[in-house]
Amino acid sequence: MKRSRKFIVVFGCGRIGSAIASVASMKGHNVIVVDKDERSFRRLSSEFSGFTVVGDAAEFETIKKSQVANADIVFALTNDDSTNYFISVCSRYIFGVEKVVARVYDPAKAKIFEESGVEVVCPVTLMVEKLRFYIDGGDKL
Amino acid sequence: MKRSRKFIVVFGCGRIGSAIASVASMKGHNVIVVDKDERSFRRLSSEFSGFTVVGDAAEFETIKKSQVANADIVFALTNDDSTNYFISVCSRYIFGVEKVVARVYDPAKAKIFEESGVEVVCPVTLMVEKLRFYIDGGDKL
Repeated sequence: MKRSRKFIVVFGCGRIGSAIASVASMKGHNVIVVDKDERSFRRLSSEFSGFTVVGDAAEFETIKKSQVANADIVFALTNDDSTNYFISVCSRYIFGVEKVVARVYDPAKAKIFEESGVEVVCPVTLMVEKLRFYIDGGDKL
Repeated sequence: MKRSRKFIVVFGCGRIGSAIASVASMKGHNVIVVDKDERSFRRLSSEFSGFTVVGDAAEFETIKKSQVANADIVFALTNDDSTNYFISVCSRYIFGVEKVVARVYDPAKAKIFEESGVEVVCPVTLMVEKLRFYIDGGDKL
């Protein structure tokens, strides 16, 4: 079984953010999802039972009102690496969030995030890891 | 040890395409990498020893001159799903390539590729799979 109910804040309600927010909500966690464009919340599953916050995550006020101070996990998943860095650093160092996970598009920037105690998921790195198997002779992953 | 030397054609020399072409070349395979923008080849590793072709992969002539007919593996990694579909279908059905792997940005389109005998790697799906582990309580993957 999973651990107890967590409080999860997701910044960015694009394809990835909406999927993660929906999954977390369906698993019974408390979820707040944040995006500057209200229409992006349409991507959430119809069973999503968390809260939505409209605001620009590049502004400190948005991060504060998204109740990051109470979060067990913060996901920084906007489509902008700089905004994700701002979210991550505020969450870790101002609000003391233990677990911060950021999407980083530019693999060269991953180290900067990691040195700030942020866990990184990089789509380019994931894709290259996956594709290497085909070269190595795997027929299917 | 790996299987014998393969002939690999990579369409799209962006971050992902250039990384895969470089890896394949360093592993001793014969590689052709194709992009419509000649400057993109700067991304290739300095040890890349394959060939480059400048051309628009949305045009049949480009696919033909990229020697797809002789390929063991074709990677369709441009940043456009429709172009990747065109590359994939031409490679599979006109040139008879056994193994065609395509990057598909829109997860909803993955099935269409798969029904055409093309293996799909989708960055959104990979990211969501990876991020789910944090929700499920994993501290680190």
